[in-house]
Amino acid sequence: MNTTIIKNGTIVTASETYEADILIKGETIVQIGREFPEEGADVIDAAGRYVFPGGIDPHTHLEMPFGGTVTRDDFETGTIAAAHGGTTMVIDFCLTGKDKPLEESIQEWHDKSKDKAVVDYSFHLMIGEMNETVLNQLPGIIEEHGITSFKVFMAYKNVFQADDETLFETLLAAKDLGALVMVHAENGDVIHYLTEKALAEGKTEPIYHALTRPPEIEGEATGRAAQLTALADSQLYVVHVSCQEAVEKIADARRKGAAVFGETCPQYLALDQTYMEKPNFEGAKYVWSPPLRDKKNQELLWKAIQSGDLQTIGSDQCSFDFHGQKDLGIDDFTKIPNGGPMIEDRFSIIYSEGVAKGRISLQKFVEITSARAAQLFGLSPQKGAIAVGSDADLVIFNPGVTRTISVDTHHMAVDYNAFEGMEVQGEVETVLVRGKAVVRNKETVGKPGSGRYMKRKTFQNLNAPTKAETLI
Amino acid sequence: MNTTIIKNGTIVTASETYEADILIKGETIVQIGREFPEEGADVIDAAGRYVFPGGIDPHTHLEMPFGGTVTRDDFETGTIAAAHGGTTMVIDFCLTGKDKPLEESIQEWHDKSKDKAVVDYSFHLMIGEMNETVLNQLPGIIEEHGITSFKVFMAYKNVFQADDETLFETLLAAKDLGALVMVHAENGDVIHYLTEKALAEGKTEPIYHALTRPPEIEGEATGRAAQLTALADSQLYVVHVSCQEAVEKIADARRKGAAVFGETCPQYLALDQTYMEKPNFEGAKYVWSPPLRDKKNQELLWKAIQSGDLQTIGSDQCSFDFHGQKDLGIDDFTKIPNGGPMIEDRFSIIYSEGVAKGRISLQKFVEITSARAAQLFGLSPQKGAIAVGSDADLVIFNPGVTRTISVDTHHMAVDYNAFEGMEVQGEVETVLVRGKAVVRNKETVGKPGSGRYMKRKTFQNLNAPTKAETLI
Amino acid sequence: MNTTIIKNGTIVTASETYEADILIKGETIVQIGREFPEEGADVIDAAGRYVFPGGIDPHTHLEMPFGGTVTRDDFETGTIAAAHGGTTMVIDFCLTGKDKPLEESIQEWHDKSKDKAVVDYSFHLMIGEMNETVLNQLPGIIEEHGITSFKVFMAYKNVFQADDETLFETLLAAKDLGALVMVHAENGDVIHYLTEKALAEGKTEPIYHALTRPPEIEGEATGRAAQLTALADSQLYVVHVSCQEAVEKIADARRKGAAVFGETCPQYLALDQTYMEKPNFEGAKYVWSPPLRDKKNQELLWKAIQSGDLQTIGSDQCSFDFHGQKDLGIDDFTKIPNGGPMIEDRFSIIYSEGVAKGRISLQKFVEITSARAAQLFGLSPQKGAIAVGSDADLVIFNPGVTRTISVDTHHMAVDYNAFEGMEVQGEVETVLVRGKAVVRNKETVGKPGSGRYMKRKTFQNLNAPTKAETLI
Amino acid sequence: MNTTIIKNGTIVTASETYEADILIKGETIVQIGREFPEEGADVIDAAGRYVFPGGIDPHTHLEMPFGGTVTRDDFETGTIAAAHGGTTMVIDFCLTGKDKPLEESIQEWHDKSKDKAVVDYSFHLMIGEMNETVLNQLPGIIEEHGITSFKVFMAYKNVFQADDETLFETLLAAKDLGALVMVHAENGDVIHYLTEKALAEGKTEPIYHALTRPPEIEGEATGRAAQLTALADSQLYVVHVSCQEAVEKIADARRKGAAVFGETCPQYLALDQTYMEKPNFEGAKYVWSPPLRDKKNQELLWKAIQSGDLQTIGSDQCSFDFHGQKDLGIDDFTKIPNGGPMIEDRFSIIYSEGVAKGRISLQKFVEITSARAAQLFGLSPQKGAIAVGSDADLVIFNPGVTRTISVDTHHMAVDYNAFEGMEVQGEVETVLVRGKAVVRNKETVGKPGSGRYMKRKTFQNLNAPTKAETLI
Repeated sequence: MNTTIIKNGTIVTASETYEADILIKGETIVQIGREFPEEGADVIDAAGRYVFPGGIDPHTHLEMPFGGTVTRDDFETGTIAAAHGGTTMVIDFCLTGKDKPLEESIQEWHDKSKDKAVVDYSFHLMIGEMNETVLNQLPGIIEEHGITSFKVFMAYKNVFQADDETLFETLLAAKDLGALVMVHAENGDVIHYLTEKALAEGKTEPIYHALTRPPEIEGEATGRAAQLTALADSQLYVVHVSCQEAVEKIADARRKGAAVFGETCPQYLALDQTYMEKPNFEGAKYVWSPPLRDKKNQELLWKAIQSGDLQTIGSDQCSFDFHGQKDLGIDDFTKIPNGGPMIEDRFSIIYSEGVAKGRISLQKFVEITSARAAQLFGLSPQKGAIAVGSDADLVIFNPGVTRTISVDTHHMAVDYNAFEGMEVQGEVETVLVRGKAVVRNKETVGKPGSGRYMKRKTFQNLNAPTKAETLI
Repeated sequence: MNTTIIKNGTIVTASETYEADILIKGETIVQIGREFPEEGADVIDAAGRYVFPGGIDPHTHLEMPFGGTVTRDDFETGTIAAAHGGTTMVIDFCLTGKDKPLEESIQEWHDKSKDKAVVDYSFHLMIGEMNETVLNQLPGIIEEHGITSFKVFMAYKNVFQADDETLFETLLAAKDLGALVMVHAENGDVIHYLTEKALAEGKTEPIYHALTRPPEIEGEATGRAAQLTALADSQLYVVHVSCQEAVEKIADARRKGAAVFGETCPQYLALDQTYMEKPNFEGAKYVWSPPLRDKKNQELLWKAIQSGDLQTIGSDQCSFDFHGQKDLGIDDFTKIPNGGPMIEDRFSIIYSEGVAKGRISLQKFVEITSARAAQLFGLSPQKGAIAVGSDADLVIFNPGVTRTISVDTHHMAVDYNAFEGMEVQGEVETVLVRGKAVVRNKETVGKPGSGRYMKRKTFQNLNAPTKAETLI
Repeated sequence: MNTTIIKNGTIVTASETYEADILIKGETIVQIGREFPEEGADVIDAAGRYVFPGGIDPHTHLEMPFGGTVTRDDFETGTIAAAHGGTTMVIDFCLTGKDKPLEESIQEWHDKSKDKAVVDYSFHLMIGEMNETVLNQLPGIIEEHGITSFKVFMAYKNVFQADDETLFETLLAAKDLGALVMVHAENGDVIHYLTEKALAEGKTEPIYHALTRPPEIEGEATGRAAQLTALADSQLYVVHVSCQEAVEKIADARRKGAAVFGETCPQYLALDQTYMEKPNFEGAKYVWSPPLRDKKNQELLWKAIQSGDLQTIGSDQCSFDFHGQKDLGIDDFTKIPNGGPMIEDRFSIIYSEGVAKGRISLQKFVEITSARAAQLFGLSPQKGAIAVGSDADLVIFNPGVTRTISVDTHHMAVDYNAFEGMEVQGEVETVLVRGKAVVRNKETVGKPGSGRYMKRKTFQNLNAPTKAETLI
Repeated sequence: MNTTIIKNGTIVTASETYEADILIKGETIVQIGREFPEEGADVIDAAGRYVFPGGIDPHTHLEMPFGGTVTRDDFETGTIAAAHGGTTMVIDFCLTGKDKPLEESIQEWHDKSKDKAVVDYSFHLMIGEMNETVLNQLPGIIEEHGITSFKVFMAYKNVFQADDETLFETLLAAKDLGALVMVHAENGDVIHYLTEKALAEGKTEPIYHALTRPPEIEGEATGRAAQLTALADSQLYVVHVSCQEAVEKIADARRKGAAVFGETCPQYLALDQTYMEKPNFEGAKYVWSPPLRDKKNQELLWKAIQSGDLQTIGSDQCSFDFHGQKDLGIDDFTKIPNGGPMIEDRFSIIYSEGVAKGRISLQKFVEITSARAAQLFGLSPQKGAIAVGSDADLVIFNPGVTRTISVDTHHMAVDYNAFEGMEVQGEVETVLVRGKAVVRNKETVGKPGSGRYMKRKTFQNLNAPTKAETLI
């Protein structure tokens, strides 16, 4: 069995920062201490470096079909980029189709990932419409694939959008099955009206993507989902929260005791709506749903992270080339594929904008980039932890250098980077997935297919565990 | 150097639950792993047991003069009881006097604690009035004694009560000095009026203690303190939060980004105001300030712990014998010494009512009983953590048994127990303070004076660290 | 021209209470003063009586088809009952049908009302689905019929329920046209799921009508409608608000400056959910949508009236005989026709429970029973006022007597009264509609067909008038 | 008895706008109608004019000693100016002194007003400290002088500032006596600290008056007063509300059913903090307490008026000459007399900024400038109403002209006008006080001493009247 030692590093967990060495045998952390015998071991010197749990990206769309095209990064380029960004596991969204067995959709996702991924991965499952047939398949899916999170769309009318009855029924099913419901919270009906109207008025530029999806309708949908969750006594995870309007609804629900959680993304913390007004159609690079918001939301989102109203950071990785994909919408903003490349810079942006700028502590950094996602998605303590018995998913991070983000140096396949030219503090040097280096001194050393599919446990409320979690 | 091994236990930290052994050399955890060589070591088998970080009780009043009497438990009986209850460190309130050098008051507290304590301890400092003289002494007190938390009373008119100018000035001083301001938040003016009125009307029974301190005036004072904190851009810790009215104010302030934290106590989570109506003056046993509240507040306080609106649990240990002390107030509730015995059962009540009843997770349990207090009061990662390099303050806890709380078996000197006859799940078996057993298999083995005074670091906002905390 | 004098009465308006006489010529108040020459005049002595503006009931369903039956009271029995209850004008809901010209539906409503009504009346228009065709008809409807309020249903899935796009589009249209959007705010999707589930579980009794429409989903829909209104910068009137959850959403929206108004009904102020559990299917008499709520909501609704968060009281008159109509649902609560008789007792219940019990002032009474409805629905100062030039719609009310409500004495056609046996303070004695007595000393003297259809003006925000309202 | 007829005007009340003539005999409105016999009558043609109830200014400081000087306008110049501004009654604050019988202070106020006032007037009474002696005098003061409103200062430490016990006791006394407690809500302790600090740092300019009284401490004090009011189940009127922070607290309290009311002033609606930075000490002209705020508060205050969260507009008239009085503070902002001239322009500014700019309706205008004050301060329906039997206090207002505000044309004695050069829509032409013209076609015709002192009735909650108000 391979032995690896990480020595002289400063270990950072969700609860402490301390200096110690880590002894890894095979895939697992077996000891944390000092002065391990180095003979026969692969010794990594982490002096002056932080050792973080590997990042968990709970929100990616790799090789996903969307609006007649497919996201540019697949499980190979996407996970290599992820690894360079300090991420050792991703949870990707498996799309389903009406009248198609769920099993079939999941199999497709297995097929496109299994020989490509260099980091570990799992799937969330999209629910388009809830009914007896779907309901009956879910226990098997959980048992077989360990998929314990289901996503419902409140937007994309006539495409993915589910009605409130499906949302409510999914919440009740999730409660019974021990799953977490994820929701894309924007009011698709209003968006539909506003986009039709904008187009009818000849408003076709990228900025109209934002103007037809105002923050109020994200707030409305978030509140609606949270209220249905409280009524169902179920659990909800709101993806890609972009604005104050939505944060308030999550905070209100949490205060009343509801199990409602929120994820935001680096783009909402470090970019703003003015990017969408860039000339020469460049605004299209910044078309996300929900859209980038007014700059004032950035500090509000940081505060929500600090106060605990938001719990995680996802990348919502969903990359499309500027040339050849984004330009499908050159004459009509509704045809711009939604999303952007974010899988590689998530961890780094959060460190640089968050920790280095004094907005969040190192503990909070670990909490939002890995630990909390592991807990919410049934992966703790195997993932998201630096603890004896946990998978040796580790990031050696040098906080003392700066680097400049650029498409020229990133590892994603996509032809632009949303943070082009931005200088960030700190750099990922070496990344281990289950004890094996995937990135070493900034070089890719992982092999496609080395990433492993992870079945996940059922949902345990962070605050109110079931007996199963405890010793008795 | 002594070597101790704790093996086969289930380690619980604020972020994970996992199985591993702990190797202790001298006072410190040096390794966490498996299969440590046992030769020459003191081996403690923790199979089927949780291993928790030792509890930190951030709120005690040992051997404290109050209303012409002195709290019954001193640093010896109090800390022995604490240890049996799973608490390995207490922070006691050092009272000060007008026109008396602070140093002198602190010395008194050192004198009464140093040969008696069996667990580690530190002091908070009471601020009665803020002025140039007091202000000038503070840097020295921090430097010399590592006292980085100052308490201001908004109640006890004409006794401890400070005016808003003192509170505000203390907040500003604390900001500059890196200290945390603690506040007893009840509107003393209104209480003064209501108690005078009650007495004038011949209302002298214990229940009038509660009726003259309604929750609204705790809410008011809490909100006032929080607002002054936000204005001062300083940090605040509200002690013994008892009710919804106060929780809401803390939550509101936190949501706006203010560094406001809240502590509640076991009595508010597990007892209610009806206890104060017990016949034969027995209600006097349950006289706390703030008073016990209507039962509905219990679930609201648990929700606030879950959502993160409250951060810690203090005991507010302040014991007086029922016979000979509480009865000072037999004819006049205002003469009943305020407070009760709680140092011993804090940890256990929270486990039993919280974890065992499915209200909080094991992680949250560690967070509120030790980890968060360590972070807030400048003790992390030395205290409140199970990590390499941390003090070996550990509790071996058997969750599989039940015990009945009683004055007959408790270790406090006081002549009653507020939870008499209550059955609780789980039992503290063995307790180590800095690697040395203080309690072993439920027997006291610690020696008075073995507890050590801890100087504390300056305040670091949990969310927004200063550069000092980070590697660069 | 007929001359009528009301003398010695105490006039009560939305702003004052004072003693004066009223001189009426023909249909109009021409003078308010003292000592009018009585020769040739019909003199009504109102000594010891209040003289109120005639009540305006903004919410009735007369002779309305529903679930295979038709409401029991038509424009004759309904408006006679209204008059006896102090109501001199009703606004009834005109149902529309898909693919049917709006004009046709309105004509039906004119047909069934014009020879029957004894009080004045107008219509609101239901909007089932908004589209180009409907949109194009609206200006004509406003011009021709003076219908300036459109109702959208968020409940009754697969029947009346409109989607959010229709609601949003209606709000935008209303803004342009100067109309007020009314909304039945309950989440029909969730109700649909819960009712299907209840029936599947064999839960068929009337109480399940309430349990499948919990207050949370009224709160949700109310909040959703209010948020869309704010986004559209339009105006909204939420009908039949029954609970705290909904009131909060209205209050929140108003505080942010949105033109959102709320109506509650006597049943929510004076009855509660326990009535629905009456044995022998009697609970069916109390089946309203939204359902009766927990009793604690009553005081909360009164507070909302006092603070101005709610503005009006509608009856939601929608009567069905207990025998022969309500019993359609004897085996299935979803088949119980929704609604109850309320047109006669609205005014009286509010006086007795509100004014006589010291909950609201006389001014507030006039405001919520007539003045505010007149302002909101384009009828002021012709209706809802005691002012020179206003229609002489007046109620002579004796506050000094009590009466007992009963089916035996009420004037509605329906076979039960929801307040059977309730004793109320005060009694309507004489009622004038446009100067002519309809009720005189409690005797019906009005003639069917004497009521007049009122075209209404466009919506003027109570607070922010357009220029049209002012002199310049 | 003199007869006056106002004909052809558009009457505006708090509930309606309509066209009618008014017949006045002696001091009283005796008839409202049409075509009154004009023989022997003084006929005023109000064609194209609004006829408003005379304004009631609930907040003035005439000939008041303050910081070693006396306000420039006394009851003569002040009330002449008031009349020209459409105000027919003022309620002035009677200062009291420690250890001085209240009766004596009131007599001083009677002495300085009775031969000077040209409009009607009444007094509020300041409470410096509440105790047995003060308490015993209050019933007599109410009986004798009809003073039913008591003001408590939470600011001006060591001068007027009362502690919370006095505030609370005053609230309880007011409840028993049927009085309304008024409060100047700013935290005087924090202001004291901040001003001392500013001066110590050599910050002496007028702008520091604002910077040492931040909005947060107005919000804090407002919330505190509101919470004590709710606890006491009493009634509170917050004077001169200047900012969002305070409005929120009032709105919160009202929503919970507390009888809390708020007044704002023209200066907060039409000026902002930048005025205080004017060079050459000119900022001193704009020194009010609370200070002018950031401009964004203006719209928020208007919204609060619209939604009903604020109820009245006071002038807080407290004029000091720029030369000779304001300049007492040329070297020290704390010595600048606080306050400004506002009595003349209150009505006009609110009309122009409110009604003419479409922010409020005519009804709301009457409500906030007279009707609501009359109700709150025990003057309705004698004052604040255009109704038969009411005092003929009337304003003939021409909305069709504009005028420019200037010290050159104003009627106050003070040497500057805070709105110098501002153009406003509408003009007061003729003003009647109890049937007698005080201003006629913009000329002063009233005689000093013609104003009458008004005893006021006890407080009646607008929403929950006592039996005394009703017929039975």
